[in-house]
Formats: sequence, C-alpha cells, structure tokens
Amino acid sequence: MNSGLRAPLENTIKEVSVDCVMFGFHADELKVLLLKWNNTEWCLPRGSIFRQELIAEAASRVLKETTGIEEVFLQQFHTFGAADRYKNNSADQNAQQLHNKFEARVDDELFHESLISIGFYALVDFEQAIPKLTGSYQWCEITALPDLSFDHNDMIELALVALRKDLRYLPIAKLLPQKFTLRDMQKLYETILNRKFDRRNFHKLLMSYDFLIKLPEKKIGTANKSPHLYQIDLEKYETALQDGISY
Amino acid sequence: MNSGLRAPLENTIKEVSVDCVMFGFHADELKVLLLKWNNTEWCLPRGSIFRQELIAEAASRVLKETTGIEEVFLQQFHTFGAADRYKNNSADQNAQQLHNKFEARVDDELFHESLISIGFYALVDFEQAIPKLTGSYQWCEITALPDLSFDHNDMIELALVALRKDLRYLPIAKLLPQKFTLRDMQKLYETILNRKFDRRNFHKLLMSYDFLIKLPEKKIGTANKSPHLYQIDLEKYETALQDGISY
Repeated sequence: MNSGLRAPLENTIKEVSVDCVMFGFHADELKVLLLKWNNTEWCLPRGSIFRQELIAEAASRVLKETTGIEEVFLQQFHTFGAADRYKNNSADQNAQQLHNKFEARVDDELFHESLISIGFYALVDFEQAIPKLTGSYQWCEITALPDLSFDHNDMIELALVALRKDLRYLPIAKLLPQKFTLRDMQKLYETILNRKFDRRNFHKLLMSYDFLIKLPEKKIGTANKSPHLYQIDLEKYETALQDGISY
Repeated sequence: MNSGLRAPLENTIKEVSVDCVMFGFHADELKVLLLKWNNTEWCLPRGSIFRQELIAEAASRVLKETTGIEEVFLQQFHTFGAADRYKNNSADQNAQQLHNKFEARVDDELFHESLISIGFYALVDFEQAIPKLTGSYQWCEITALPDLSFDHNDMIELALVALRKDLRYLPIAKLLPQKFTLRDMQKLYETILNRKFDRRNFHKLLMSYDFLIKLPEKKIGTANKSPHLYQIDLEKYETALQDGISY
C-alpha cells in the first residue's frame, strides 16, 4: 500500500481552479449568473486557487474578483476531473480549442495537460446582488441556458441536483427576504425542486417545525388578501436542519 | 474577469490525490477500513490520480491497489484543500512531519507545497469484502476510531454526514444482502442515521414506496418468529430515489 505517497510527481500534478454556479432567486424565478468570456461565449465565474489559500477562501475571492459580489452563501458540491471534462465533451469544439490553448501554455512535461475544477454554488437574491464588472453578464433562467464554455452546462445541472438535496440540510430559506409569507417559502421550495406542493399540506408541514415565527404584520399590496409575514428563528432552523427537513 | 485563466501557473499547481472512506455494514454494525501506514499509524486507503485518468477511475484503482477490493459503490463527497488540511491540524505533529516529508521532495518553486485530496466513500458488506494486502488492516467501528494520519478523522466525519444525506437519494439499500427482512433494512437506516425508528411507522413508511418485493420465503433461524424476506425492485427504487425517500 501507500503507493499514492510514492507515486512519481508527474502523475499527481494538476492545475486546480474553482467554478461558481451562482443561483439567484427572485419573484418565483431561479436563474444563474453567466459572464461573457472571449467576447463570444458565456461561462461561469471561475479562477485559480492560490498558494496557501483555503479552497473556500478561493471560491469567495474568485466570485468577488469576477463579479464584484461578496459575502454570499457558498457551498462546495462536486469536483470535476480534467479528463472527464474534455473526454465527455469531445464533440464540443470550443472546449477542445480552449483545452489546446491551455496546452500551448504548458511546455513542461511535468505539468498535467488538463484541469481539475472544484464546483461551488452560491445563493443570492438576484435583484439585490448586482454584479460590478466591466464585461457583459446575464442572469439566465436555468431552463433556458445557452451552450456554455468548458463543461459548464453539466456543472450547472449537477449544482442544481446538489441544491435540491441540500434544501433539507442547509439554511437555504435564507434566500428569502427577512420577512416573507408562507407562499413565498412554498414557491422557493417548488422552484428549486421543480414540483408542486399542496398549499395546505405544505403549510402544515412547515408549521410542524418550530423555526417559523409568525409576525403581527401582514404583507400589503398583494392581489386578494393580506397574508401574514413570517421570519426565521435561525437557531431553531439550524437544529431542524441537523436531522433534515422532510417534505 | 477571466483572471483565473490568466493567473500565473505557479498559483494553480497542486498535487491531487484521492482518499477512500470505506464503510462496511454487517450485523447492525457500521465500520471503516483502516490501513497501517509507516508501521505506526493508521490511515485511509489513498493514492494519486494519474494523467488522463477520470477522477472516479482513480478512486476505483486506488481502492483496488491499496486493499485488493474492487467493484464497490464509490461516491465522491468532498474535496479537501491543501491549506485547510494542515492549517487546522497544526497541533498534529504526525501530519506536520508528513507534510515536511512532502516538502522535502519538492524543490521546484513552482510546485505547491501541499495537497488537494478528493474524498470518496465506498460501501460494502465487511464480512464479504476481504482486503487482500500484505500490510495490516482493521475494520474499525466509527464510534471508536484511533487518531489517524493526515486529516483522515475529519474526512471520515464528513463522509458520514454525506452518507446520511445520500441515504435519501442513492441506492444505499444495496448494502443489504439480496434477500433481507424489514428489520434488516430498519437497522441499516438506524445505524447510518444514528437514531431509532418506531418499528411500525418505519415499516409503514417503507411499504408506502413500492420498491420492496415481498417474497414467499421467510427468514429461518431467528430467535422468535420467522419474518418475511424482501428484495428490491431496482428500477422502482431508482425512481423513488429521484425525489428522495422521506423518513
């Protein structure tokens, strides 16, 4: 055993980057932030990990550098292998060209010809999180994505799978405004899970956990009635998440 | 943007390895496979990723090379950063020494002084999966782990968190023998989740999914009664897992 520790260095050297799938939720819509790359293609915010930098620190820094957005909830969800990324994508000429571009830069035989990328997803309210950058960007609906650079379409798909799983365990309801209605929360769940809940059952389910605080205020300006506003008791929410929230 | 693509190479080079947390379940017990390393310490099976190798292929190969065990269910769960691994572990002299050992080998300034490791967990029946190797090994109960090399204690902890989440979504019941009783399945859930279920409610829950096939046979040799044996309809199980199994 321990062959790993004795393996020749040239087998183990990789370029490692982080890629961020930034989900934005607002008014019942789930979107992803795309950046213009190379003036022709769209891609996710991405960048390298520096020496001595924690992986999670790198993700925050990259997001800030590429979008101007900071202090968001970031969650690592999957690591994408170099070989995986291009092998499965051989029909994708753009990816192949980019790949060759990387290659051309790397003339030391020791360097691996490909990349490993650690995928993170972020969650924001896309009306609040305004990118500050010189290049073009768009918030694109997850159901209407263009062909992206690299393997970024696959990445978004896997990030969404992770987000769906994490809804039970991570404080994803923080995506809601500080005060919200039960309908808002239902829509958040429905949008992420891409399925409908019966209103009455869903509300009963939510209230079976004790992390929702009913406020005396009501939401005004809605069409028919004025529903109650709620806020989250974060401590109780965290406790409920430890076992997973069933729905 | 695109700063990542233009970042100097020396910032992006890492050694990348895979580490395998091999969970074994048998007779209501959950254990982890540990290997003797350096004649003094215990650690997880680990090794490097080769050129052109898919990450998942590397995990299978490493597990086979280090333990002789193959064709097991392997699931990527988290990637551990180099800096994270030693910063948080500075009190750990062993880890520090190993770290220095790596350092000593690496004299090119371009090489990063630390490692990135992609964590996988595997699932087997530990009575069936017999390691074939010359060094020592042990199946250790997850509640009684010794101090392991590197950050392997943290890794096992996170693998267990991932396993608990994945129980809703991944075919983890494949860990059971082909024919099993509802009690066996309840024990699998209870052991992984570290909590008790009410027998009647749990059985009712299981039967509310239609992936369990009740067999005409009964289990013999048990103390009091002869419970029915079941098997899994894999196709229906996969369908149920897509939405997540609630418990």
